[in-house]
Amino acid sequence: MTSKHISVGIVGGTGYTGVELLRLLATHPAVELSVITSRSEEGVAVSTLFPNLRGVVDLKFSAPATKVLGNCDVVFFATPNGTAMKMAEELLAAGTRIIDLAADFRLKSATEWERWYGVPHVCPGLLEEAIYGLPEVARDKIRTARIIANPGCYPTAVQLGFLPLIEHGLTKPSSLIADCKSGVSGAGRTANLGALLCEASESLKAYAVSGHRHLPEIRQGLIKASGDNVELVFVPHLTPMIRGIHATLYAQVPNASVDLQELYEKRYCDEPFVDVLPAESHPETRTVRGVNVCRLAVHRPQDGEVVVILSVIDNLVKGAAGQAVQNMNIMFNLDEKAGLSPVALVP
Amino acid sequence: MTSKHISVGIVGGTGYTGVELLRLLATHPAVELSVITSRSEEGVAVSTLFPNLRGVVDLKFSAPATKVLGNCDVVFFATPNGTAMKMAEELLAAGTRIIDLAADFRLKSATEWERWYGVPHVCPGLLEEAIYGLPEVARDKIRTARIIANPGCYPTAVQLGFLPLIEHGLTKPSSLIADCKSGVSGAGRTANLGALLCEASESLKAYAVSGHRHLPEIRQGLIKASGDNVELVFVPHLTPMIRGIHATLYAQVPNASVDLQELYEKRYCDEPFVDVLPAESHPETRTVRGVNVCRLAVHRPQDGEVVVILSVIDNLVKGAAGQAVQNMNIMFNLDEKAGLSPVALVP
Amino acid sequence: MTSKHISVGIVGGTGYTGVELLRLLATHPAVELSVITSRSEEGVAVSTLFPNLRGVVDLKFSAPATKVLGNCDVVFFATPNGTAMKMAEELLAAGTRIIDLAADFRLKSATEWERWYGVPHVCPGLLEEAIYGLPEVARDKIRTARIIANPGCYPTAVQLGFLPLIEHGLTKPSSLIADCKSGVSGAGRTANLGALLCEASESLKAYAVSGHRHLPEIRQGLIKASGDNVELVFVPHLTPMIRGIHATLYAQVPNASVDLQELYEKRYCDEPFVDVLPAESHPETRTVRGVNVCRLAVHRPQDGEVVVILSVIDNLVKGAAGQAVQNMNIMFNLDEKAGLSPVALVP
Amino acid sequence: MTSKHISVGIVGGTGYTGVELLRLLATHPAVELSVITSRSEEGVAVSTLFPNLRGVVDLKFSAPATKVLGNCDVVFFATPNGTAMKMAEELLAAGTRIIDLAADFRLKSATEWERWYGVPHVCPGLLEEAIYGLPEVARDKIRTARIIANPGCYPTAVQLGFLPLIEHGLTKPSSLIADCKSGVSGAGRTANLGALLCEASESLKAYAVSGHRHLPEIRQGLIKASGDNVELVFVPHLTPMIRGIHATLYAQVPNASVDLQELYEKRYCDEPFVDVLPAESHPETRTVRGVNVCRLAVHRPQDGEVVVILSVIDNLVKGAAGQAVQNMNIMFNLDEKAGLSPVALVP
Repeated sequence: MTSKHISVGIVGGTGYTGVELLRLLATHPAVELSVITSRSEEGVAVSTLFPNLRGVVDLKFSAPATKVLGNCDVVFFATPNGTAMKMAEELLAAGTRIIDLAADFRLKSATEWERWYGVPHVCPGLLEEAIYGLPEVARDKIRTARIIANPGCYPTAVQLGFLPLIEHGLTKPSSLIADCKSGVSGAGRTANLGALLCEASESLKAYAVSGHRHLPEIRQGLIKASGDNVELVFVPHLTPMIRGIHATLYAQVPNASVDLQELYEKRYCDEPFVDVLPAESHPETRTVRGVNVCRLAVHRPQDGEVVVILSVIDNLVKGAAGQAVQNMNIMFNLDEKAGLSPVALVP
Repeated sequence: MTSKHISVGIVGGTGYTGVELLRLLATHPAVELSVITSRSEEGVAVSTLFPNLRGVVDLKFSAPATKVLGNCDVVFFATPNGTAMKMAEELLAAGTRIIDLAADFRLKSATEWERWYGVPHVCPGLLEEAIYGLPEVARDKIRTARIIANPGCYPTAVQLGFLPLIEHGLTKPSSLIADCKSGVSGAGRTANLGALLCEASESLKAYAVSGHRHLPEIRQGLIKASGDNVELVFVPHLTPMIRGIHATLYAQVPNASVDLQELYEKRYCDEPFVDVLPAESHPETRTVRGVNVCRLAVHRPQDGEVVVILSVIDNLVKGAAGQAVQNMNIMFNLDEKAGLSPVALVP
Repeated sequence: MTSKHISVGIVGGTGYTGVELLRLLATHPAVELSVITSRSEEGVAVSTLFPNLRGVVDLKFSAPATKVLGNCDVVFFATPNGTAMKMAEELLAAGTRIIDLAADFRLKSATEWERWYGVPHVCPGLLEEAIYGLPEVARDKIRTARIIANPGCYPTAVQLGFLPLIEHGLTKPSSLIADCKSGVSGAGRTANLGALLCEASESLKAYAVSGHRHLPEIRQGLIKASGDNVELVFVPHLTPMIRGIHATLYAQVPNASVDLQELYEKRYCDEPFVDVLPAESHPETRTVRGVNVCRLAVHRPQDGEVVVILSVIDNLVKGAAGQAVQNMNIMFNLDEKAGLSPVALVP
Repeated sequence: MTSKHISVGIVGGTGYTGVELLRLLATHPAVELSVITSRSEEGVAVSTLFPNLRGVVDLKFSAPATKVLGNCDVVFFATPNGTAMKMAEELLAAGTRIIDLAADFRLKSATEWERWYGVPHVCPGLLEEAIYGLPEVARDKIRTARIIANPGCYPTAVQLGFLPLIEHGLTKPSSLIADCKSGVSGAGRTANLGALLCEASESLKAYAVSGHRHLPEIRQGLIKASGDNVELVFVPHLTPMIRGIHATLYAQVPNASVDLQELYEKRYCDEPFVDVLPAESHPETRTVRGVNVCRLAVHRPQDGEVVVILSVIDNLVKGAAGQAVQNMNIMFNLDEKAGLSPVALVP
């Protein structure tokens, strides 16, 4: 077993992606957890806030300090949007690599970023260098990246679902629909009325139908894969469960002779974390609960022109912390699966 | 207050639509509950099986007997598919009117029925006479009907959502997609593994993507409203809640100048049980929990060609028992709202 | 049917007890909803905040004003603790009667009140006059009361469960244990981390074991019923559901010959809202969801000395808004059941 | 890393304890999964039934055959009660050790067994030899045992909670009460109405108040620890969550001077899987979700005579499969923690 030789820092360890990172990194064979920051919880033991880490993590939250973070080999940002961009240049100068789980480095255009996130980008010069960390698309670039823009949860599920069709130019350009259902943990560990159990359980609703921040991120990825323009209707829904995203994807695929099942299996046969189910399958989100896996199924109902792709991930794992660890494993030449247990907790 | 002058029988009162009928009819001002049948629970007090009815319903379940049922003014079938069609002719001959909450009389073609339900129809001669009981489409015919085919849950939510577009010929004929999410009560009160709390909670999945029995029912209704062919992709999902259907409907509407909000408000302004929300709304299923209401919202994201309709109902009420009571109210010239409380239980 | 002759005001209509009051009063045959106040939502339509009331309640929230409230026959306070006591004297002077759903008038001792609620009581002179509104104990005094202290949710379930034993002096004085389980709505409609779906679902915990504010309220009631001192251990638990309280009550009852089933049935035979189940029953909280009923079952396991009482209510109905309406019905000589639908929503 | 040198068989791998065993054993560093039996699923791939094991377990279910099982070093029975006792003698004769997760070997008295389980015991001669596998009590005997009776879920939570008090004779003998709340997975992966999501979610109820099979098991353990008689009232409750047991334990402890916090911390300081929380804590069941840990907290409310112990476990892990693996680790001189990941999945 590898020695604990990678020194890791986490900025913003009190949200759901933060505690999920802690869960994964605390038992990662190559990782030494060096520092976890939180302004609001400074001085509090991590295991006081998250008793599931009692006996495993004995760090305390500290105030964010570039000096300490700059001694880490890699720093994860599990922070609100707009935080990582403020500390990135200093950390890079200190030789620390960055994996940002928020959106700061996901969009290539600073203008688009400002449009969707409401504030100007403070280091637009780094946007070009940052690598969009979807390993199934950019593994080689991830190896040497200094900054990883860890993909959003919806964008991960949607892109992995559409990619095989898009890369082969099989879909009509303006026909894409992504009807996505997310668990409530996607809303984060913050006290907002809409995420209360009494508001969000036993109910289901769409939200942000007029435009969600993940839309430009998904489009950017699909356009790059297609080499052409891509139009997408994206409707996210809040569903009464803690974890899980189910993306139901619709695309018109006029070519009736292509074997879609084979296409998907080939595309992902070497991917350790994408699992194409047998034909006629319906993946359940719980089969990826807690694990860094995307499960896919391909359907063409009534042999019609519309193809239906079902794509499930755990929004906190393959949609956030797990994919971040996968990226770290690639960046540091570790076994890509290191620290990422493969078996979902069912039931 | 009206005297209790309508004698009502229920065949198959032990499922979820059955107990929901009981809940609504037990306090209906014009209804006298005369008989409730169940082979398996014969002799058992209804309130033993359903303690929420203690002190309100003092009937016992009896074995189904056409003689007794034939004395009722109206008999509701809350039975599995294939039951009502076996008793219909005899009851009609006795002068009893029928509201079937199952699928026996929903499809006009006996061939289609056999294809989707797996057994030959035993009284195909009645299919033409039976009225598809969607009051928003067929109120006048319902008044005088002898047999009501009470619509399915998904078909109610989907048709009410698409109708204004379809009736005005605004959609491209082959562009319709209905992505539907249902609570688990749609699976009925039967012991099947997939509906266990430990299987269905904290998870979400699509099912029957290759073809669901509600597909021909929806298409039949939309084709009738359109006067033309209609193609539809229909993907149902099982979601971790008890009640509620959320239909997310997609249609290409090339005409950019039509005011869809106004179109929907006009279409339903006189409907007591369809509520068109203000523009930019996202209806939650819990706002119709326990009530006979369909709430709709209309969106055209990014002013694109694809229109998104959000339609929510309670699958056991407007999707089953409530709509059946609404049909009964129409059939017997009662206030259409009689017995149908308007306020959902929130939270 | 009675005309709408009782003018009602609600102070603080934006919490869960507030919206539940609205649900019940909006369709109450004798009530005219005159005013609903909320500082934070002033000017907003009630049905915007609570879409389940669309088409039923067309009031807007207004700022609290004693002048307007003083024109009401009765004002309900669905406010945080410490609010009603500030407005009570002025309203009483205006001839308005008060039903406080918070704790301001529940304890007879101003000293005790300050000890548990952390601030001095501002109108201790009214504590003696205020009637503790448990109709099963104080119906006659409620009729003529000017101020009703509507009981807490736990105190309602626990007292109704213990009363028959206590009133007959059957228990050892220091042996009482109340192990209570509550749904999350008891925590109110406020954005606190612990009530998030992702924190409170799929988990269960005890809280406030060292001392909960409902403890002195329960003890006060039991001591009064007993005429003697009563010691009680009270452990509340937070459970992953929206509504419902299940109180599991333990008491040593040395007299083995008393017929407890009969005792309970006799005690409550004339009570419209207490339902003693047959021997060997286990009430489910869902059988009282949305209704103003307490269901009880009595057990003596292995014929031992310890008797186990199971008591279930809906914390928002018999534990809050429903009991408040029941009290109003008594105060205004209405049918005690008016506006209180008897059938729980199941499933 | 240890080589995979322990050959393991599982009888009855299709229930929740079975799939949980599979989850734990599939990644256990010393275990070679050799055979998994199921009559009903013979020939079906394990990962077809449990897609969370895709890519990890490639066994198929086979019919149970003593010959094949007899080649294993150890066989786990994750079967209904009454199965293991039929195969035990033959397996022991073949030199295979047995860990029974059902109840066949838990009670020392065959008469008691028949009384509670309704059929005569078929190998009463083995009852004396079988070791009750609560490592915190019987670690040394477990090392060399041929048959382990793996404790029930409630008995694990209750005994670990009461033991420090009992072992020191601090409680009044007849004062023990165990009010226990369990998730629905305790009811097993079988299609029964009461475990449906629509029956068990959004509700809570007690069950088996007159007598539950775990009562004699708990009493036997406490009597052994006490050396004296012990009376216990045990009330289990079904709560709307998948996993987790919360035992709330009450005992009269007259000695007011004993430092209970210290007592508990000392008792369990060397136990790898019992975690005594700081004073004033309230453990949440989710902090042990998926892990083999019991977390305890000790309270003495209002400094009274009644002590309250809060004890939480995951019923499928420390209450079943995890404890079984812990027992196996002890039996085969492995690190007691091998294969038992320490961090619960939160949220």
